[in-house]
Amino acid sequence: MSVTAAKGFTAAGIAAGIKENGNPDLALVVNNGPRRAAAGVFTSNRVKAAPVLWSEQVLKSGQLTAVVLNSGGANACTGPKGFQDTHATAEKAAEVLGVGAGEVAVCSTGLIGVLLPMDKLLPGVETAAAQLSEHGGEKAAIAIKTTDTVHKTSVVTRDGWTVGGMAKGAGMLAPGLATMLVVLTTDADVDSETLDKALRAATRVTFDRVDSDGCMSTNDTVLLLASGAAGVTPGYEEFAEAVRAVCDDLGQQLVRDAEGASKDIRVEVINAATEDDAVEVGRSIARNNLLKCALHGEDPNWGRVLSAIGTTSAAFEPDRLNVAINGVWVCKNGSVGEDREKVDMRYREVHIVADLAAGDETATIWTNDLTADYVHENSAYSS
Amino acid sequence: MSVTAAKGFTAAGIAAGIKENGNPDLALVVNNGPRRAAAGVFTSNRVKAAPVLWSEQVLKSGQLTAVVLNSGGANACTGPKGFQDTHATAEKAAEVLGVGAGEVAVCSTGLIGVLLPMDKLLPGVETAAAQLSEHGGEKAAIAIKTTDTVHKTSVVTRDGWTVGGMAKGAGMLAPGLATMLVVLTTDADVDSETLDKALRAATRVTFDRVDSDGCMSTNDTVLLLASGAAGVTPGYEEFAEAVRAVCDDLGQQLVRDAEGASKDIRVEVINAATEDDAVEVGRSIARNNLLKCALHGEDPNWGRVLSAIGTTSAAFEPDRLNVAINGVWVCKNGSVGEDREKVDMRYREVHIVADLAAGDETATIWTNDLTADYVHENSAYSS
Repeated sequence: MSVTAAKGFTAAGIAAGIKENGNPDLALVVNNGPRRAAAGVFTSNRVKAAPVLWSEQVLKSGQLTAVVLNSGGANACTGPKGFQDTHATAEKAAEVLGVGAGEVAVCSTGLIGVLLPMDKLLPGVETAAAQLSEHGGEKAAIAIKTTDTVHKTSVVTRDGWTVGGMAKGAGMLAPGLATMLVVLTTDADVDSETLDKALRAATRVTFDRVDSDGCMSTNDTVLLLASGAAGVTPGYEEFAEAVRAVCDDLGQQLVRDAEGASKDIRVEVINAATEDDAVEVGRSIARNNLLKCALHGEDPNWGRVLSAIGTTSAAFEPDRLNVAINGVWVCKNGSVGEDREKVDMRYREVHIVADLAAGDETATIWTNDLTADYVHENSAYSS
Repeated sequence: MSVTAAKGFTAAGIAAGIKENGNPDLALVVNNGPRRAAAGVFTSNRVKAAPVLWSEQVLKSGQLTAVVLNSGGANACTGPKGFQDTHATAEKAAEVLGVGAGEVAVCSTGLIGVLLPMDKLLPGVETAAAQLSEHGGEKAAIAIKTTDTVHKTSVVTRDGWTVGGMAKGAGMLAPGLATMLVVLTTDADVDSETLDKALRAATRVTFDRVDSDGCMSTNDTVLLLASGAAGVTPGYEEFAEAVRAVCDDLGQQLVRDAEGASKDIRVEVINAATEDDAVEVGRSIARNNLLKCALHGEDPNWGRVLSAIGTTSAAFEPDRLNVAINGVWVCKNGSVGEDREKVDMRYREVHIVADLAAGDETATIWTNDLTADYVHENSAYSS
């Protein structure tokens, strides 16, 4: 269902020949209205890909009619020519759809530092436009995959209205968004300011807290488009909750499909003095390579959790820290706690609780283990 | 030669039975004077091992007669009992040497969260004291190894005086010092204030810029002891240069012996607005797992260098960044530069130059690649 679950949207996904292996690589999502409100959140990396620079610009109007997405090339670090190519892509979609280029966002994903094959991409936009369908959401989700092993979609339906979406992302998952492209759609009748507020609130506690490998992409983009086709305007809280639910679901799917991972690790920081402290500590734990290796080896090595906490500026006293791994409090008061032999590490899910004993704020960061497969996947080919 | 290259020092290294495999695990270094000045630099991790807390305290006097070092256990996160054990270790050495416990520093390395076998360690201190020798430096260097494949020593001799030292360290190499224990000795006649100044200046640009895996230890300690036995007081600059040379040499040895590494990577940041900017950018590049995997695969993936630079707060313009890998400027003005096929990646040494085009400051960070061997070594056993 994906981006076409909400009324008022059509989509397509095709193989334009951008990927040398002939797999689908071009998606088009169109908002047929009546409303064409939109909001976007982009990578906080200061080295931004051309499509990010373009889409940030067009989003300032709060209006989008279409999104063109390609896999097979990130169009990042490609200079003025790269930006011209993004512009030409938007122009082509606008021409085919009979709208202005300023209503078309562009997203790209793939290898950095390589120009896109425009002789294939531009005809591909025409082909995709000809295949636009209310059932095209799944094909669009498939066309944006890179090293993803599965395509990711999610749908939440409320009283007469729907939020749906698609995502791609596998490696380079980190704060300030991952190497992710996400398009969300809704048929609720919501203006662009509300979309923006709900989207930022949702990504802050979902995609921004997925930190698979600590690496931040140049291309991350999350777009939310509203068609108003359901003719319903939900209350803000209800709408924001639905957007957050779809973002949360897609974020979890990203973690479960992270490159080479064998464990999905939930790092829950509790009793922090501030939410920022909780996030800082969670990230520090989630990014500790030694801990990620230990968890891969099913070793509940809580000393590596403590050494990660110790590198942060969060409020805590070392001799009051407590750590549980899969429900066993292996560290109490900064020292040896329950018997680590009690920790059952056989399953893919790992749950770490870090108790800072410094307040009552909490945050959860999602990450993966570090595996030889991750090394192989990221050393064997340019991505 | 190690810590006994300088006159006035004796040392020993023995197998006390702390390590279950029977390998050497206890070292003792003694300053026989006439001067007993000392300085120390410790981990900036806020979760500090008991021996770090102890040694920081005794160093406040600027005087040390002896250092006891053990491998086979870090004595970190071991609560009040762990601190008592460190204290008892210093007391035992003091008793045997006929000095006060406040003149004895203690260093430990190994698994976090496990109490040391004091029934083996304390008799070991007596055994080591009985074997103290002017030729004991190498044995001491061997006894502090953990996953090190070779022991590390360095000696610099100047006009009538010497600085020598030993180091251990393999994984967990990161800023604020690595999982390293380092003892440096000199027979120059230098007071503790000068030792402190020279040691801090040296570690700031050597050990603090070795960032093998981004993980910071709870036990890192670098000590510098002066016996004055040479009867020579060098000028500060001359002395500081010698200390820096020994630290630099030992730091390089740590990088070359990092766990599982197949590449030694020198990240040189040039034309930064400030030295802090250069260090921040260098660390960000050195810690990027995706880049470290690519370099392992001998792929000059400069896009990952740019995406790492983009996550920093350093002064730069994305379209003015230049990156060279092994002498080939693969990225110019933030975009595609020379042909990446020209980059020869066959050797263990990799040299990355990141030109920020924002000033004239520079810094060099040393790191390693990320390999399946690193994952195996750090997931297969608790360390």
